[in-house]
Amino acid sequence: MGKKDFSDSELEAMSPKEFRDLTRRGEWTEGNLQACRGYAQADVAIIPKEYMSDFLLFCFRNSRPCPLIDVTDVGSLHPMRVAPEADLRTDLSRYRVFINGELVAEPTDIEDYWRDDLVGFVTGCSRTFDWAFDAANVSRRFIGAYTSDIPLVPAGPFGGHMVVTCRLIKGAQNVVRAIQISSRYVAAHGAPIHIGDPALIGINDLYHPDILAFPEPIAPQEPDEVALFWGCGITLQIAAMEAKPSLWIVDGRANTFVTDRLSEELAVI
Amino acid sequence: MGKKDFSDSELEAMSPKEFRDLTRRGEWTEGNLQACRGYAQADVAIIPKEYMSDFLLFCFRNSRPCPLIDVTDVGSLHPMRVAPEADLRTDLSRYRVFINGELVAEPTDIEDYWRDDLVGFVTGCSRTFDWAFDAANVSRRFIGAYTSDIPLVPAGPFGGHMVVTCRLIKGAQNVVRAIQISSRYVAAHGAPIHIGDPALIGINDLYHPDILAFPEPIAPQEPDEVALFWGCGITLQIAAMEAKPSLWIVDGRANTFVTDRLSEELAVI
Repeated sequence: MGKKDFSDSELEAMSPKEFRDLTRRGEWTEGNLQACRGYAQADVAIIPKEYMSDFLLFCFRNSRPCPLIDVTDVGSLHPMRVAPEADLRTDLSRYRVFINGELVAEPTDIEDYWRDDLVGFVTGCSRTFDWAFDAANVSRRFIGAYTSDIPLVPAGPFGGHMVVTCRLIKGAQNVVRAIQISSRYVAAHGAPIHIGDPALIGINDLYHPDILAFPEPIAPQEPDEVALFWGCGITLQIAAMEAKPSLWIVDGRANTFVTDRLSEELAVI
Repeated sequence: MGKKDFSDSELEAMSPKEFRDLTRRGEWTEGNLQACRGYAQADVAIIPKEYMSDFLLFCFRNSRPCPLIDVTDVGSLHPMRVAPEADLRTDLSRYRVFINGELVAEPTDIEDYWRDDLVGFVTGCSRTFDWAFDAANVSRRFIGAYTSDIPLVPAGPFGGHMVVTCRLIKGAQNVVRAIQISSRYVAAHGAPIHIGDPALIGINDLYHPDILAFPEPIAPQEPDEVALFWGCGITLQIAAMEAKPSLWIVDGRANTFVTDRLSEELAVI
């Protein structure tokens, strides 16, 4: 629980700056997927510059799960392209800090960890197309996030397999709209990476996601529901854990960074 | 003149492998913008790995003029994503070699310059949307390439101003189609960067392009023609010349690299 309480609709109505100020003051430390409707949310990875070249290449080569929308200069606190006034040390509601691949802390700011050789990577998030799905009344159920057997294209120490999210979409016309709509948001994972049988991408139990699941049991797939899978930003967290960098700081699972850019500003058409 | 002669239609009908084999054997050393209709052509920049991180970041930050479609591993001859069987030392019809920012040679292969610390960058080229414009009968005139006053977002030693191309498009419906069509090809510069008055982006004489011009005089703009400007791949060559890297190898001005990927495979929607 944060130090102040806000309803979902209050969070949605905030401007990005208002919401980031709240987290900067430590007054909101919970998940914030509802924050600032319409603004692009993002995952953040903060790493020492020695990994910069390989990680840039890794994101380029795996842009569906890891769509880069900003990279800071070395030592800079500010993602100049998407939120120039933001401070990456304080403006996320919660962080996870890994040292040599081990989770060592989940603080609400990272001022104690900040160093002049750190670089911030900001990657787009599916919140963007979920709002667009809402706007188009695309009926769906978010089921969870899974480790697939889709190989990532490696770069230096980064590699492994793609993490994907699954949504069950109800009815052919909603499937069509979901593909059309998500395709516009290349900066937020873009089009689905797989459609249909989960086993074809190495997911053997759709009802028990290994990466991210809701506590409630998942109702079985209906005959008119189609499973659509998208690349997921957790991919880069998993890739990083396996690479065991000396320091690696990311957003908490539901503690995305809120940018100043509207999702529509980042849409390709 | 190459060692063999081919008509434009013969070049257009070749497969990418056939065309690259021709250049590999030194049998075609001329411009090849007509080669392999439908396949994505690309600019290539080959640089020592010490510049890799900055140049990756530069391309990401300036993706309209420099849309990355492949990056080789250090020392690899093969762009695995777009043409895995190609050999970057021989498969372009002509190269330009810069040492410390000075043009020192324009060879038809770079075997003498190859080193194990080189990295190949491959960026998409507007040939892709020009073919799509043809297919939609978008009436236009290519006028030339210019240095604009649009600042690039710098990364390390790379910066400067964007080079743009200008096409005069005839009639409002063709302008609409040109914007719709080019927007799909994010990997080939995407949508226009400017529309209308050239002076607004620092171009004071549309009829005398400073970067690339046809020998023929340019007929004046008609009342129903609109000037559309796109980011141009020559941007990265200019940026590199100003950065004066120790070694820098690029394609000749009309000697693009022909990939195995159809332009449509790289379109975003």
